[in-house]
Order: sequence, then C-alpha cells, then structure tokens
Amino acid sequence: MTFNDLIDRRRTNSSKWDKMEKLYGVSAQDGLAMWTADSDYATAPCVIEAVRDAADHGAFGYSWEHPQYLAAVQWWMQNRHDWAIDTDWVLTSQGLGNAIALCLDVWTQPGDGVVIFTPVYHEFAYKINTAGRRVVECPLTRRGDSYGIDLEDAQSRLDGSEKLLMWCSPQNPSGRVWSPEELQAVAAFAERNGLIVVSDEIHQDLVYPGHTFVPMDKAAPEARAWTVTLAAASKTFNIAGQRTGNMIIPDPKLRAEMRHRLRTLDYAPSALGVAMVTAAYSPEGAAWADAQVAHLDANRKLFDAAIAEIPGLWSMPLQATYLAWVDYSGTGMDHDEFVRRLREDARIATSSGPGFGAGGETFERFNLATQRSRVEEACARLKRAFGDLQ
Amino acid sequence: MTFNDLIDRRRTNSSKWDKMEKLYGVSAQDGLAMWTADSDYATAPCVIEAVRDAADHGAFGYSWEHPQYLAAVQWWMQNRHDWAIDTDWVLTSQGLGNAIALCLDVWTQPGDGVVIFTPVYHEFAYKINTAGRRVVECPLTRRGDSYGIDLEDAQSRLDGSEKLLMWCSPQNPSGRVWSPEELQAVAAFAERNGLIVVSDEIHQDLVYPGHTFVPMDKAAPEARAWTVTLAAASKTFNIAGQRTGNMIIPDPKLRAEMRHRLRTLDYAPSALGVAMVTAAYSPEGAAWADAQVAHLDANRKLFDAAIAEIPGLWSMPLQATYLAWVDYSGTGMDHDEFVRRLREDARIATSSGPGFGAGGETFERFNLATQRSRVEEACARLKRAFGDLQ
Repeated sequence: MTFNDLIDRRRTNSSKWDKMEKLYGVSAQDGLAMWTADSDYATAPCVIEAVRDAADHGAFGYSWEHPQYLAAVQWWMQNRHDWAIDTDWVLTSQGLGNAIALCLDVWTQPGDGVVIFTPVYHEFAYKINTAGRRVVECPLTRRGDSYGIDLEDAQSRLDGSEKLLMWCSPQNPSGRVWSPEELQAVAAFAERNGLIVVSDEIHQDLVYPGHTFVPMDKAAPEARAWTVTLAAASKTFNIAGQRTGNMIIPDPKLRAEMRHRLRTLDYAPSALGVAMVTAAYSPEGAAWADAQVAHLDANRKLFDAAIAEIPGLWSMPLQATYLAWVDYSGTGMDHDEFVRRLREDARIATSSGPGFGAGGETFERFNLATQRSRVEEACARLKRAFGDLQ
Repeated sequence: MTFNDLIDRRRTNSSKWDKMEKLYGVSAQDGLAMWTADSDYATAPCVIEAVRDAADHGAFGYSWEHPQYLAAVQWWMQNRHDWAIDTDWVLTSQGLGNAIALCLDVWTQPGDGVVIFTPVYHEFAYKINTAGRRVVECPLTRRGDSYGIDLEDAQSRLDGSEKLLMWCSPQNPSGRVWSPEELQAVAAFAERNGLIVVSDEIHQDLVYPGHTFVPMDKAAPEARAWTVTLAAASKTFNIAGQRTGNMIIPDPKLRAEMRHRLRTLDYAPSALGVAMVTAAYSPEGAAWADAQVAHLDANRKLFDAAIAEIPGLWSMPLQATYLAWVDYSGTGMDHDEFVRRLREDARIATSSGPGFGAGGETFERFNLATQRSRVEEACARLKRAFGDLQ
C-alpha cells in the first residue's frame, strides 16, 4: 500500500475518526479528521509483517523488552540520528504520554513548578495540572518565520520552586528543529535552575530536507546527569495505539529511580508493541520512513500553497512534523467564528491553538499525515469556507 | 490448531521459554517450561482473526476502551458468570499485575498493612513489599483435600493498621474455588477491619466440572462499597503478553479515585489488546474456552495419576486453574534436593512453593497449560527422576 491509497478508518475504533463527531460536531460521514496526531495510511510493510507473524504463531504469552528490541532501538538512534546510546539506558513506557506522566510522578511533588515553553503540545500542561503540579509557562518568541527561545525572559518567570523542564524537540506544534546551540543553552538553563530536562523527541524522524534533528543528549552530553530523553516509533510508524515508548536515561541515579517506579507499578510493554517497534527500527523501516517524509513534504507544500492563497491565513513553515500550525489573526476573525467556519462550513476537525498555551490564541493545528487527495480536499474546502476574505 | 498441536515457542521472546535457562538453569534445548502462567498453545481462532484484521487494516493509531469492548466484557460476565455489571464500572489496566500495583498505589500508603492469605500468588507479596507496604500474612488452613480460611486466626494477626485485603479467587496456587458463604465471610471480615477488598479473579474461566466460580461482587453485593474486582482474558485466552486487564469497580467513589490515578499516569490500553479481548469475549471465544477446560481437565487427570504413583508426592486436586500444586513433604527431601532433581534430572522448570508464602514450603507449582504430549513427557521424567523413592 502507498501513502495515497485511501483507507476508511471510520468504525475501526480510531479515536481520530470515531470520536470526531462527538468532540467537534464534525460528522465522519463527510468530515475530515485533521486533529489527533496519527496517520491515515498503513504502517510499514515490515511492521505489518511482524503482526502477521505473531498471528501465525498464535500464542500471545508473556514477553519483555528483549535484547533484539533494545538492539533495534540502539541501531535506530545510531543510524538515523548519529546518537550512540547504551541499551542499558533504555526503559520502556506505555507510549510517551505515559512517559511524560511518569517523569512528573517520579521527579516532582504536588505543587512543584514545571517549566514549559509555549505554545507547546497541549498534553504537557494537561498532565502537569492533572497531577497537581504547577505550570510555569515561558512563551517562545517569534524568530524569523518560526519560534525561538528567550531564556532571559524565562529566567524572570521562575521563582526557584521549579523541579523539571518539559522540552519538545522537534517542536509540536510549530515544527521547529532546534539547533545544537539552542539545546545546549536549554541544558545550561536547566542546570542553573536545578531542573531535570525531559526532552520529548517523538517527532525526531519526521524532519524535512534542509534540517537536521539533533537529540538533546547528543547536543549537550555534559547535561546527562539531568536529562531524560523520550522517544518512540509511534508517530513515525503510525503505531501510537500500541502504546509503546522509550525513556532513554543515561544517568544511573535517575534511571534507578524510574526503574523502581516502573517496578512498583508492574509496568511491562505489550509483546506486540515490542515486536512492532523491533520490526520498525530496521533498514526496511528506515527506507519506509524516508519515503513517508517525502510524502509529507509534498503534502505540506500543497497545503501551505493553498493557505497562502487565502487572505489573512499564514502557515508556519515546517522544519519537522506533519502538524501544520496556521495563524488566522490576519483574518480579524475571533476564535469562535474561525472555528465555526472550519467545522460547519469546511467540515474539518483540527486542534485549536489556545490549548497549546500562551502564543497559540490565533492558531489552529492541522494534521497532514493523510492521503494526498484528502489534503487536496481540505485545501478546496478551506478556500470555499474562507473565500469571502479579501 | 488444536490444544495438542506442538508449537515451538523457543526464540519467540516467550518469557517462559526464553528466560528458563537463565533463571532455572534448565536449557530450552530439552527442558520443559512449566513455570510462568501462560499457555503453550495458540489462542482462540476468533482472537487470531482480530489480529489478522488489524494487520489487514494496517493503521495502528490511537484507540480507546470503546463501547464494543465494554459490551463484550459485560456480555462475558453475564453469560459466563451470571454476573450483571454496568459497563460504567469497567476501567482498564495494563494487565492484572499492573492492576494490583495500582490498587496498592491508590488505596494504601507506605507502611500500611495489606492482608493476604497464603500460600498465594507470589506477586502479591512482591508488589506489597516493592511498594513499601507491609505484608500481613494469614495462613490458609488445610480443609479436606484443599485449603480453607480461618478468619478468627486472621483477626488475631491484624493490628488495625491494615488498609487492604488482596484476595485470589479461584485461588492460585491451590486451584480452590471459594463458596459464596466463604466469600461473604471474607467481605464481612474486610468490613469489620475497614479493608478494601481487591479480588483477583483472573482464573475465573478455568473451572473444572463439579465446581462453580462465583464472583466476589455477586456473592457479596452488600460489600460493593469496599470491593474491587480484577478480571482479564489473559489466562483464559493466552494473551497475557498484550497486558490488557479490567478493574471492575461498582462504587463511584473508589472508581473516581482509580480513574483519577489512571488519568495522572495517562494510562490507556493497547488498541490490539482491546481488539483481542473484544474478539475473545464472544460466543466463539466461549466455545473455545469450554474446549480448553476439557483439555486441561484431561491434562490434570493424567498428571495427578502420575504424581500419585510416585511415593511421597501429592498433587492437590484442582477445582480450577491449570496450575498443579504438588506437595513433596512425603519424600523427606529438602527443597534444594527436590528442586535439583526436578531441574537437573527431570529438566523441568517449575515455580517453587516458598515464594508463595507460609504454607508453600514443601510445594512446587506445575503449569499444565500445554500440549498433552508435553504433560506425558513431564510425567515420564518425574517418574524417572524420583524412581528411587519407596
């Protein structure tokens, strides 16, 4: 199957498609689901093959993070990101949402401050608040046609009660790929303030030509004693439903603390999730991932060109991720009116900017990990829904 | 495939087979894995079909505990156990080991006492200790050819600091099926002592002719305000590797407390696990489960007959579960010698009784969920290894 073969995900218990009407009032009958960050096409053939092999075997008993799995993770980081890791550093989580929650659970207490740079993945603030910790919001600054960080401003917002910095790299929702210098500055900022850095690198494989993703730990190895990296195959290979992620923790003390917590919760990954990631993190998976980036690159060019034709809309040029970040402030519309037209007229479900924190007020996030024809249809609908703009 | 078709699980990352040599010194080359409680045969065709359907679809994005899943759980409890539950009561866990750990996490504090009746599933004490809680061990009494409970004795072992009672029904490792009267007495004992009852009912479907499993909540509905039931398809359908379990919590306050904890940990089940359980909890799954019980019933009769022929060995008659509980005290051998012969001479890996707590000192637990030919081979080896006994 190619990235453009249409798959009907409706009535397959896909959250993105089957919860859309309830959450957005956009019927799956003719709506386009461009919110939740998963893909509408099939995963890599090697991953599907691993699932078929498991079905052929037929026994689904106890398994674990076995050596082939750990070796595959190590291979991927070395070969795709030029990042040398020890297999010992790798602990598994139930996907990266769970990993974020576990980091908060292990390394912060109720009331502690957790630093985030907004706009950022909405689940950061949600998880911090749900766990009774305190969001310390530092706004990203606009730099050129993307975002930058202002650590002086950030410093002024801290009061010393902060324990952890939740970082997103490449950045969701802006698609920003951070430079090694920026990452080093963040690591040093964390050291000055006694913060553990949790670097969520789930979009690491979805990087466009001209940009190079550098893992936090590779950019700032001097920060190993206070850095935890989260990585997963879930976005890259569209297997988020398997809830399998990695927490890569070079520091022995931090790793022992997390390992103990996993043990007290009796955490172990699903055997099929482990099998799928092992198959994905391979030369075959890498070739498929490259082809996917080419597909997404064409999707986003098509989308950005259409957005550029609608007066008042602006799509931030993506350096990574399949999540387009669209500013509608130029339309003069308020949130309610823009979103009403999106949902009722264009019948598209997207993620609204305010949920991503300060700086996201006039944005909507569009998921472009779909068939080309669906992106074209979305563009046509947007032009119709906002055709009256001058 | 039938229950007797040989499947080679070696080098499939099966914990039971591929960790055996490291943990027991029994090589998988010619050893028999009769320890970890999963099965050596393929799961039900309807479950395999669900996995194949997912592979055919190819997209493995986000999903959730969807209505068909909840309806399947409800259907199973009603049709297999005559137990009426609301779908609202069902929260999911990452298998029942995780569920046990979560109950300790939510309803006890470090230092709190947790009551268990031993010998019992070794993970109870392990999890209680790992979490820094205190094991309050109440020995089961021998009653006829199985175990009973002595709540007067148990009462004398409590000091008022206990918060939770971890119950196992049907009982692992003895295979005891508790009567409604016994369950009511346990519920009342918990009430008198202010204990939440966590009833681990994972073996509920593996009950032999002549015995009827009754869920704790059905036997003692008056105890709903302090009872939590754990149930899963993992043993019944050999899908423990998918780590999908249910916590069935009728009481709104307890349920809200657990739901909040799941939210702070960002827990959600794997999509394939949910799909497999939905397929398993069906009329097709029920027919397969019935056939499996018939297979296991023949296995245990064969095994018990062989054990009866070895002087000094005695296998407790199973009312439920595929876990034979064998007393070797009549041989006069100490643990080391008995286990040495088992592993070195018979080349069988089993779970040793002392791990199950007081009362398990002279026992070994044998997993009989395997092909008939492997049970026969185990019997032949045991007869040879212990052929000198008079």
